[in-house]
Amino acid sequence: MIFEEKLIESERIYEGRILNLRRDKVTTVTGSSYREIVEHNGAVAMVVLTDEGNIIMERQYRYACKRAVLEIPAGKIDKGETNPQAAAERELKEETGYTASEIIYLGGVNPSCAYSEEVIHLYLMRGLSKGEQELDDDEVIEIVEMPFDEVYDMAVRGEIADSKTLAALLMAKGRLQE
Amino acid sequence: MIFEEKLIESERIYEGRILNLRRDKVTTVTGSSYREIVEHNGAVAMVVLTDEGNIIMERQYRYACKRAVLEIPAGKIDKGETNPQAAAERELKEETGYTASEIIYLGGVNPSCAYSEEVIHLYLMRGLSKGEQELDDDEVIEIVEMPFDEVYDMAVRGEIADSKTLAALLMAKGRLQE
Repeated sequence: MIFEEKLIESERIYEGRILNLRRDKVTTVTGSSYREIVEHNGAVAMVVLTDEGNIIMERQYRYACKRAVLEIPAGKIDKGETNPQAAAERELKEETGYTASEIIYLGGVNPSCAYSEEVIHLYLMRGLSKGEQELDDDEVIEIVEMPFDEVYDMAVRGEIADSKTLAALLMAKGRLQE
Repeated sequence: MIFEEKLIESERIYEGRILNLRRDKVTTVTGSSYREIVEHNGAVAMVVLTDEGNIIMERQYRYACKRAVLEIPAGKIDKGETNPQAAAERELKEETGYTASEIIYLGGVNPSCAYSEEVIHLYLMRGLSKGEQELDDDEVIEIVEMPFDEVYDMAVRGEIADSKTLAALLMAKGRLQE
């Protein structure tokens, strides 16, 4: 039986654009402690495969990491949006121009279960049709089409640093081998 | 050539126990914007394998996720600590009682590259010796030894939600097949 920490009192610290922060006093086995919690509305990320076995990757500058990061297409779930798959289809269209006729749900993952409520819903998408990118004015995203197996080998060698991409590659590879 | 966002000015919002939060005004292609950035000192996580091909897993209540989470052993890098591998060895000993004679660095991953500076360093550890757990007073961690292949199959089916665990399983599996 795992001890469940319960809320005693909560302090709002920050309400922002993509995240909020609060500090909760919670019950622990020895009495009480504080948990710093990032609130985030959730996100989606997609392994998008062409008929030729290529994967659609993105390279974009990530200010928090101070470098360009190679990752799968992804995006935030809008406030009030209740259908993660609709968010995934929208983000794929905006960022890459693609729509997919086959969409398989892989699962939901917690990027930082120690301090963040964020859940990222992962999808495998195939049966692509190409349209136009519809990026926001300040989005700069380079689309990179690469053989899936090459990206997977990079992941094994520690050359892909983005954890949602790694989680989705593991699940997609397993599903493709079934 | 990827556009690199540069700092214009920075606002400290919160300095806490396991994370800080700041809001940076940065240059963008269209002018400027704000980036909310979680500062975190970094962490380590370990795929720990027995001679029998089992993996040492942990189950612990994660308040941010409101449930018990199945994950690999992990811990924070202490402030001022410059050797992630030493942190990994310490956390493994404290949380599970194990020490390892073979330690392979798998890579560093970003759990949330959109808003967090955190890097988690991943290791594969073998050649185990068993000692005593040395948990902190308020830590409640259940140790679960399971066949590696069983945990990997759970991961493929979307039954492991912790993204550092998924990233490390992908890399460890690839290394074990080499």
